[in-house]
Amino acid sequence: MANQRGILPKKVKGFRDINPNMNVLRQKIITAAADVYKLFGFEHWDTPVVEYADSLGKYLPDDQTTDKGVYSFRSPEKEPVYNTVGEELRHEWNNEVLMENHFLALRYDLTAPLARMYAETHWNDFLKGNIKEKQTQLFRRYQYGTVFRFEEKLEPGRFREFWQLDFDSVGTNDISADAEVCMILSAALEKIGVKRGTYLVKVNNRKVLKGFLLSIGITDENTEMNILRVIDKMDKIDLQGITEELGKGRIDTSGAGIKGLDISENIIKKIVVFLQSFPKNSSRKQVIEQLKGYSENQIIEEGITELAVIDTILTELNIDEERVIFDPTLVRGLAYYTGPVFEVESLQAFIDEKGNERHFGAIAAGGRYDGLVQNLLGIRVPATGASIGVDRLAELLVQTKQLNEKAEGAVIIINFDDKLMGEYQRIAAELRAENLRVEIYYGDQRQLKKQLQYADQKNCPVALLLGEDELKKGVVSVRNLKLGKELSTTITDKTEWKNRVQFEVERKNLTKSVLKILK
Amino acid sequence: MANQRGILPKKVKGFRDINPNMNVLRQKIITAAADVYKLFGFEHWDTPVVEYADSLGKYLPDDQTTDKGVYSFRSPEKEPVYNTVGEELRHEWNNEVLMENHFLALRYDLTAPLARMYAETHWNDFLKGNIKEKQTQLFRRYQYGTVFRFEEKLEPGRFREFWQLDFDSVGTNDISADAEVCMILSAALEKIGVKRGTYLVKVNNRKVLKGFLLSIGITDENTEMNILRVIDKMDKIDLQGITEELGKGRIDTSGAGIKGLDISENIIKKIVVFLQSFPKNSSRKQVIEQLKGYSENQIIEEGITELAVIDTILTELNIDEERVIFDPTLVRGLAYYTGPVFEVESLQAFIDEKGNERHFGAIAAGGRYDGLVQNLLGIRVPATGASIGVDRLAELLVQTKQLNEKAEGAVIIINFDDKLMGEYQRIAAELRAENLRVEIYYGDQRQLKKQLQYADQKNCPVALLLGEDELKKGVVSVRNLKLGKELSTTITDKTEWKNRVQFEVERKNLTKSVLKILK
Repeated sequence: MANQRGILPKKVKGFRDINPNMNVLRQKIITAAADVYKLFGFEHWDTPVVEYADSLGKYLPDDQTTDKGVYSFRSPEKEPVYNTVGEELRHEWNNEVLMENHFLALRYDLTAPLARMYAETHWNDFLKGNIKEKQTQLFRRYQYGTVFRFEEKLEPGRFREFWQLDFDSVGTNDISADAEVCMILSAALEKIGVKRGTYLVKVNNRKVLKGFLLSIGITDENTEMNILRVIDKMDKIDLQGITEELGKGRIDTSGAGIKGLDISENIIKKIVVFLQSFPKNSSRKQVIEQLKGYSENQIIEEGITELAVIDTILTELNIDEERVIFDPTLVRGLAYYTGPVFEVESLQAFIDEKGNERHFGAIAAGGRYDGLVQNLLGIRVPATGASIGVDRLAELLVQTKQLNEKAEGAVIIINFDDKLMGEYQRIAAELRAENLRVEIYYGDQRQLKKQLQYADQKNCPVALLLGEDELKKGVVSVRNLKLGKELSTTITDKTEWKNRVQFEVERKNLTKSVLKILK
Repeated sequence: MANQRGILPKKVKGFRDINPNMNVLRQKIITAAADVYKLFGFEHWDTPVVEYADSLGKYLPDDQTTDKGVYSFRSPEKEPVYNTVGEELRHEWNNEVLMENHFLALRYDLTAPLARMYAETHWNDFLKGNIKEKQTQLFRRYQYGTVFRFEEKLEPGRFREFWQLDFDSVGTNDISADAEVCMILSAALEKIGVKRGTYLVKVNNRKVLKGFLLSIGITDENTEMNILRVIDKMDKIDLQGITEELGKGRIDTSGAGIKGLDISENIIKKIVVFLQSFPKNSSRKQVIEQLKGYSENQIIEEGITELAVIDTILTELNIDEERVIFDPTLVRGLAYYTGPVFEVESLQAFIDEKGNERHFGAIAAGGRYDGLVQNLLGIRVPATGASIGVDRLAELLVQTKQLNEKAEGAVIIINFDDKLMGEYQRIAAELRAENLRVEIYYGDQRQLKKQLQYADQKNCPVALLLGEDELKKGVVSVRNLKLGKELSTTITDKTEWKNRVQFEVERKNLTKSVLKILK
């Protein structure tokens, strides 16, 4: 028996159940942010949880493993393989259509599915030659939902399924749309309840970094991406660590050796000087002025010009450095960004269970990705947008006690006697007609104590008690559970406590009485 | 080139994107139903999209195929195998922990994950012997979200990913909770917008069918399930088809042979008589009286008693046969039901594209499943609940024009001139401060015609036009797009039309003017 395989009732590691309190909070975050997105003209679209792995831009090996953090698996259904113009491929020897169980994947973000949706919509027009670059159609949508990442090492507080809340403008070269991203992030976070001064929208431009690296002789794209990947670790390893990783390599905290990029000392020095040269409290205009010192090529100049456009618009709207700053050292991980990048940093800290001060870091991020749709559609479609990390933000609001929502339970009707069920139902119906939430206790453990424990767990504000005696007298006993909880800390005498929190009302006045308590 | 493998921008077959209109509708359905669920004391919980396949109660073969309509795949992570009491299993020869890439699955409904969540919560108490049957804890939750079924043959209007909206009471033997399911289904549908008289909550009890089959000599559970599966097809094949399938078999519409159950003619006759013997417009009490004629064993008697309890409560609350009827022929597909079963049938029809009248059939369903949690927890935990099919209901509301939500777009600011972007932004900010939705056109196709096409697509009510000329005059041109659309059918003269729908307002009166149009 003990050696038999068993089925354990367990959620999958890295996944979690969401309780009512967290759901209330999540709902508030989504509603508040969506309201702001709508205010800027974004529409609500949804895409499936499952997509063809190819469409998500991941190239999977031909076995059953997942590639870099994506959950993927073979479709249970054989489907044709297509060529680059959408025709079915055929076997050479018998001319039969080549069929395959294609790889499917759980979406790892909401941006790649957006690119797929946009490309799919315009694919036939593209094949017919009806759309061209620079004439792509504008499409602005917001979307929220769950996304999946298979992180092998799961850090505390991180999950493999989490919620994102995205807005994007596809089909626009206009840098005003990037300025708008900053406004929206700021407005959405404030509407959610993150107070001004406790967060910062940080902006950079990939062209600034690319142009700078070009100016010191980094022309190879691969090397550029590797360097950016190291710079992106600024928050985790310090400048010393970055210096080492750009050069000979370093030993991380666990003692493991991290291979270095083997870049020449001369160039490393220039990079480090650049990273150190922007004071934290610089104004946006100061950053722009300083960057002009590096302006040696067209790319960095474009980057600076775009930052200037963003600054101009934000300044027009009196959005100053309390909300949005420029940070020329900001990278943002994703490889597909091509222009402005955004990251919202929470400035708040909290004390964790071990008594350590912890920072939240990034709570939202985004950027311009002019190349992403091209992978699928074949023409360049400029786009920009950002995403709010719903779960991390919920955690922040809980930890900093800014929005500690606790779902209040229903009025509970204690179930004393099956014969009175009709009366319980009538009472419940009367109260519900007043839009009051009412639950009749249907549990199998009927002791009063158990029923009250249940009511306590569900945070019920009021209990109604009705047995044969009360029925004969034409009354119902009403117990104010909320008051009871408050008084239980100060009143120790049981009788006194009960006198204060429980009273009989005439049956006909019941609804009025409950309404009064709950008001 | 043409023979190269291509990546087509395509959603997976059976999956779909949801547009803003459908999202508005879906949101309305969810909000309305959730409001009703809350009114009855259900709390909002969520569970992951991904679960261990074993937990969902499906037993998968050891290869990569999916079993009966479930999307499943190997976890990318090796984890221990456990025995029936939660200890790690070890290899016999080297005593190392047995590790495996367990099968994961996309949830195919919200009930199986609920059973997992409940069992997981109480698993340790169970191991310690702290909980026993008939002392299980009451747990009532509602949940909505997406579920996945791999249906090989996809009928029109069916999808492989769709939304459910469930409420369940776990840990209750009380049949009052089943009566409540009927009330909630009815109240939720009416709150959503399904009018009374256009739907029917149909109720049966598995014990009635089981007891009847027992009374005619069907004692084998397997045969019983097979017979029920055939009876369940009543809506699709008629009584003739059922007779054939219970006996020698039949030929379906496609000409394929369907194997029969080979039951004796005598028994088939009794089944057919039973199926025909309940007039459609019987009252609940009439059905109960008639069933008493079959009461030959304890099981059917239990079933009848439970139906009587449900009838009594509903009658107390004046919920009559306009809303809830008893139908002793109702099966409901799922094998795990053990007592009362529910199905809401829409009585509405619509005319499809081909001009045929079509019925919607079931829009919600549920039942009592006293054995489901037992599979995971080892003790019997009685439970009951139901689920509303969100997408099918949305389709019904659209087709019957009961709730034809069309998302209205934002006020659009036409983008004539980059130099005026600051002014566009100020106008937008002013209007947004009044909680008006405003979009500045950022698209790359700047011709006025293209911008107005875009506004039309997004159903924008108002366009604001501002170029150098207007700026100098201190005015903004306001075009009432909504009125324009209405008048375009009656006014053919372009100048007259424009005079009616477009006018200049002083810049300082702009907000007031737009507010007036939108009111």
